[in-house]
Formats: sequence, C-alpha cells, structure tokens
Amino acid sequence: MIDFYTYPGPNSRKAQIMLEEAGAPYTVRTVDITKGEQFAPDFLRISPNNKIPAIVDHTAAGPVAVFETAAILIYLAESSGRLLPVDPAARASTLAWLIWGTSSLGGALPQLHHFVDSTDKVPSAIERFANDCVRMLKVQERRLSEVEFLAGEYSVADIPSFCSTAGWLSRVKALSNGALGDTPATHRWLKAVAERPAVRKVMAGG
Amino acid sequence: MIDFYTYPGPNSRKAQIMLEEAGAPYTVRTVDITKGEQFAPDFLRISPNNKIPAIVDHTAAGPVAVFETAAILIYLAESSGRLLPVDPAARASTLAWLIWGTSSLGGALPQLHHFVDSTDKVPSAIERFANDCVRMLKVQERRLSEVEFLAGEYSVADIPSFCSTAGWLSRVKALSNGALGDTPATHRWLKAVAERPAVRKVMAGG
Repeated sequence: MIDFYTYPGPNSRKAQIMLEEAGAPYTVRTVDITKGEQFAPDFLRISPNNKIPAIVDHTAAGPVAVFETAAILIYLAESSGRLLPVDPAARASTLAWLIWGTSSLGGALPQLHHFVDSTDKVPSAIERFANDCVRMLKVQERRLSEVEFLAGEYSVADIPSFCSTAGWLSRVKALSNGALGDTPATHRWLKAVAERPAVRKVMAGG
Repeated sequence: MIDFYTYPGPNSRKAQIMLEEAGAPYTVRTVDITKGEQFAPDFLRISPNNKIPAIVDHTAAGPVAVFETAAILIYLAESSGRLLPVDPAARASTLAWLIWGTSSLGGALPQLHHFVDSTDKVPSAIERFANDCVRMLKVQERRLSEVEFLAGEYSVADIPSFCSTAGWLSRVKALSNGALGDTPATHRWLKAVAERPAVRKVMAGG
C-alpha cells in the first residue's frame, strides 16, 4: 500500500494520474497546506522541502519515501514497470520530456499564475513568464505535430505536460496577443490523453 | 564517444561534472547562445527546447540524444552505473534530491538572478525569489546537518545543488537580511564535494 500525501492542485494530479496508471493501491492522506500542515515534523521527514505531493510506499523491503513530482513519477513508473521504456534512446527521450514538463513548462506556469492572479501584478514579470510559456507551448506543439505523444508512445512524460496544458493553454493563448497561434496537434494530444481511464478518473476529482 | 553541447554556465557545469564522474569520453561542442546557435535546426533535433546542455551518446546501438539537465544526469548515471543506487529507497532519495536541486532550488535561483542582476529590478519579485531561495537553502542545511551528502552517500544528487550553492550561497545570505543564518553543514559539504577530482576539473574551467 502507498500513502499518497496530497492537497488539490496540478502537481498532486500529476502524481495521482501516475498512481492510477501504475495500478498501485494507495491511501489518500490530505495535507492541508492552508493550515500549515506541510511544516509538521512528521511530514517533513517524508517531504523535507515541505511540498505536496509526496508518497511513502510500504513495500515488503521497508518504506520508500519520495518527494518532488518528477521523482514520484519515475519511482512509480519503475516500480510498476509501466510507461517508462527500458530501451536507452526511448528511455532518455521519456525522461527528457518528463523533466521538461515538470521543470521547464511546469516551472514557468506557477510563476505566471502568481504574477497574473495575485495582487502582485508586475507587468515585466507577467511578460517574462508569459513569453516563456508561449515559447514552450510552441515547442510542445512542434513536437506533437511530429509524434503522437511527447516521447513517441504514451508514457509517463505526457502526464505533467497534460495537466499543465489542460489548465493553461487557453489562458496563455489569451495572454499572448496572437503570438501563440493555433495548436491543432496539442488539442489532438490533449484529447487522446484525456481519454485514458486513469486521467479521466483523476480529472473528474479522483 | 559522447557529444557534449554546451555554453559556459551553471547547468553546463552540472552536466560536465557528471560526464567526468561517469568516466565517459566526450567531445565539447560549443553552442554560442549569444549568437542564437541554440535555434539552429540541427541543434533543435537534439534539444527541442533550445537549451544547453544537451548530449548525444554515440553508442554501438545507435545515438541517444538527451536534453534537460536532470535527464542528462540520470542518463549518465545509469549508463555508467555510477552515483545512482539501485536499492529502491536509496534510489528514490537520490532522484528526489536530484530533482529538487535541478528543479526547485535550480528553478528559483535563475529567477532571482534575473530580477537582481538585470535592469528589471522588481522589488516584489526579488523578495519572492529570495525568500524561496532562503527557505530552500535552510532545507538543504537541515538535511546536511543530518547526513553527509544529500542522499546519504555522495551521488548524482549532490552535483546540481553543489553548483547552485557554490555560486549563490553568499549572495543569497547577503540578500536575506539575516534570515539565512550560519550554514556550517552546507560549508562542510561544499568542501567535500569540491574535493572530488571531477568537480575540481570542471570548476577550474574544464
């Protein structure tokens, strides 16, 4: 059994989709970040950076604690033997697009969110992060016009970018003043990923 | 032989240290990002997000291209069998701290750098990213006061955080107005990592 430490949000959805894809039984443990529960010593022993999501896999060999969304996705893919190829070239591509989704695209969007949606509306910061998100969504569109899924076949690499893109594509397009044009390949891919049973379940509220 | 696509900077140093640690022969291929060479079609086929570093490993089975610093580090650790444990708990911890270093700490520092060092000196953005870097350098100090290296033994997880911390600890401390206090465990760790021959070579200019 896996303990899944979570609070509603995009990073938790990424981890939960992979938990569903892995077919691993898990128990939801809500960490109420509005009450500061992420700073509780017991939670910091699992997730020292005080962030959700995190997991603890209570395997026969002893508990395995994992924090950082990308590390959780890799761990679950490896432990389940699902959605992460073994062939070196396919594996490298999958890891590269996975990290791109969690770290590059997935790093810029929360900053855009902050500067657009908080009271701290700094025009130069909005422009900086919007430009970077537009650039990356174009990178993704170009990639998806060449291959069906980010790493060729559907893989763990699609999960973080799917969550980010589903939540933000239309907003970034609106902010881009036309710089982000049509994205037909991205829409085709969003639809294909959304049809996965694991994705449907989590996007519907788990 | 590995082609190492690079331009001087912290992310390139992270990849090059792991190339040295892996003991893999490599050829340096400079991508002059001041001349826009990262947008050349030949380079985008290797690194579709137009960023350095990237590598192409010309193995017997065919070329393997990898982009995103964390994916390069994982690839080199796996292909060399060095600095990434196989035991599930140790491996999960190593991947978590590796991703934390490239994505969390390694994601915030370039933003702090931008808002502190460019003409775009936005006080609220400087405060936002400085606070987050202070918080994370405290997380790192607490971790390193409990264990010798981030994942217990020296591993691929130490490389990105070492590069970030070596470059930024004193600046973040100065920006923190005392909020980041003494960091003796971090200094002990910086010294230990700096003594690795691979690290010494790369930090001296490769």
